[in-house]
Amino acid sequence: MRIQGKQYKTVWFENDALCLINQPLLPHRFEIARYTDYREVATAIRTMVVRGAPAIGAAGAFGMALAARQGVDLDEAAQALGSTRPTAQDLFYGIETVRGAASGATAASASGIALDAAREVADHYEKACEAIGELGADLIVEGARLSTHCNAGWLATVDWGTATAPMYKAHRQGRGFFVFVDETRPRCQGSRLTAFELGEEGIDHAVITDNATGFFMARGEIDMVIVGADRIAANGDIANKIGTYSSAVVSHENGIPFYVAAPTATIDSECASGDAIPIEERPGEEVSGMFGWDEEGDRAASVRIAPKSSPIRNPAFDVTPARYVTAIITEKGILKPEQMSA
Amino acid sequence: MRIQGKQYKTVWFENDALCLINQPLLPHRFEIARYTDYREVATAIRTMVVRGAPAIGAAGAFGMALAARQGVDLDEAAQALGSTRPTAQDLFYGIETVRGAASGATAASASGIALDAAREVADHYEKACEAIGELGADLIVEGARLSTHCNAGWLATVDWGTATAPMYKAHRQGRGFFVFVDETRPRCQGSRLTAFELGEEGIDHAVITDNATGFFMARGEIDMVIVGADRIAANGDIANKIGTYSSAVVSHENGIPFYVAAPTATIDSECASGDAIPIEERPGEEVSGMFGWDEEGDRAASVRIAPKSSPIRNPAFDVTPARYVTAIITEKGILKPEQMSA
Repeated sequence: MRIQGKQYKTVWFENDALCLINQPLLPHRFEIARYTDYREVATAIRTMVVRGAPAIGAAGAFGMALAARQGVDLDEAAQALGSTRPTAQDLFYGIETVRGAASGATAASASGIALDAAREVADHYEKACEAIGELGADLIVEGARLSTHCNAGWLATVDWGTATAPMYKAHRQGRGFFVFVDETRPRCQGSRLTAFELGEEGIDHAVITDNATGFFMARGEIDMVIVGADRIAANGDIANKIGTYSSAVVSHENGIPFYVAAPTATIDSECASGDAIPIEERPGEEVSGMFGWDEEGDRAASVRIAPKSSPIRNPAFDVTPARYVTAIITEKGILKPEQMSA
Repeated sequence: MRIQGKQYKTVWFENDALCLINQPLLPHRFEIARYTDYREVATAIRTMVVRGAPAIGAAGAFGMALAARQGVDLDEAAQALGSTRPTAQDLFYGIETVRGAASGATAASASGIALDAAREVADHYEKACEAIGELGADLIVEGARLSTHCNAGWLATVDWGTATAPMYKAHRQGRGFFVFVDETRPRCQGSRLTAFELGEEGIDHAVITDNATGFFMARGEIDMVIVGADRIAANGDIANKIGTYSSAVVSHENGIPFYVAAPTATIDSECASGDAIPIEERPGEEVSGMFGWDEEGDRAASVRIAPKSSPIRNPAFDVTPARYVTAIITEKGILKPEQMSA
């Protein structure tokens, strides 16, 4: 996708290094981070230099390729990379695909095989997201008013995004529509990343607080919701960014179609239901404070909001039961939640 | 209530001046703002030095008393004070009570009559909130896990609070319970004010994002919700801080009792339903940025989150239909929504 008119991907491999758009700096600074050590990649995933289920799937795959190049035991590397974020199924998909490809290889050939496998993971995601866009674009009619949560945009994938892919395709097909962007506390990936992406692409949108989504739904100002997913259970339950569940319940109450867009790699067929999905709890500082930039965009700063003495709870994801999900837009078709186990 | 062991009210009149706890500085600084000109009071209400429906009701009443003392036409003062915040019914109650009391008075006596009337408004709120606390405390059983939104605490009233009054009374009766405090974007009155209040009072609590409330509800970790109200329509619909509606819908979906605590002055019997309640839309800067303090609590700072080019929508309140409200805790009893028009 385009940034300031130039073509970028979110995750790629170049000159012996994994390259990532440094996402905590957005939308104020655009910088590329480069990694040649798989342990640095693990840290980058944990600290969310890269985030979004497919993007960390691809980053995990390239992390494994770096480990193979470093001559590190791949089981050890898989453990280090896989323990960074417990909820995203794609991370395990990326890691295991590369480990599987390189497992029978000789030491001499493992490095090349692992890198090829990682590139295939990234290519797979890119193609899957573009297919999601093509299938999902038909759901967006002229004048539609959409809602999305967090960033399931191209910054969360390798390219195109999941929830945003139908928007980009519909936009390029010439249709006009409007997107309400939930800011998505605590890390505000909506206001930082999704708003940035939609702005670069020239799509009409407004940033709102997560609290305001229900207001616009109840007023009949939202026609459909599209969100991403971090893991999809075999029964169609969806783990996604905290707040997705409330958005789904309020959509359901107001008769608003609620779509999830995700590549099939996000489906965890060994996970019977959402109850079995581990939910990451992140540091309280994300809630007691806010990271941002001064008005000129020059200086990064963090401000404290809550009293120091107040405890914080900060679950990063929630589970939306399948009954609230209208359909799941995958690269293989627009599926009903009950089709996940097939 | 107590701050650092000392007894305070939120709004009071002393030495010819209206005194307010300066709320945007909390929880980092505790300062008293003093006003002798009703126009300054209007600005203080608009900029939310004082906020919360009953607190601005009392501040509006004292603003009218200052106007009478200044010899200003009271219709003009009522207009200036009443146009600051369009949603709160209590503001009109406070202003109209003082205007009504002073309307027939001679110029010489109007000032004293207006101040007496304003003091009565403040006393009325204090007593009503304490009564709400006594009635509502019985709803909080030992070990209960509560949720509240925004600050309907004593900082939103003259003393005791509305939603928090039952908590303070139950706590003083020796019962142990836990409160999930929604941070309440955009202005974070939950993390700034409610967490501060509960901490000063020694009540167990945790601050969570507004997105996390549904997560804890779905996991069965919330037993009841108590929120305040800015206006109650004759049919029992409730206008309250943005996000209340979503909390109510998700409570309803999970079978969790949803209580509203408010003095009867918040009921607008001329307002047939929530559709007729005007909803204030506040500046976008509240959403595109966050105001806070550095880690030492020394320096106030504001950080920008969203891209400058992204439009913002910022409705400050929403309407919760009566069907989601279990009961309304007033000073006159715990009432069903359908009893509002009686």
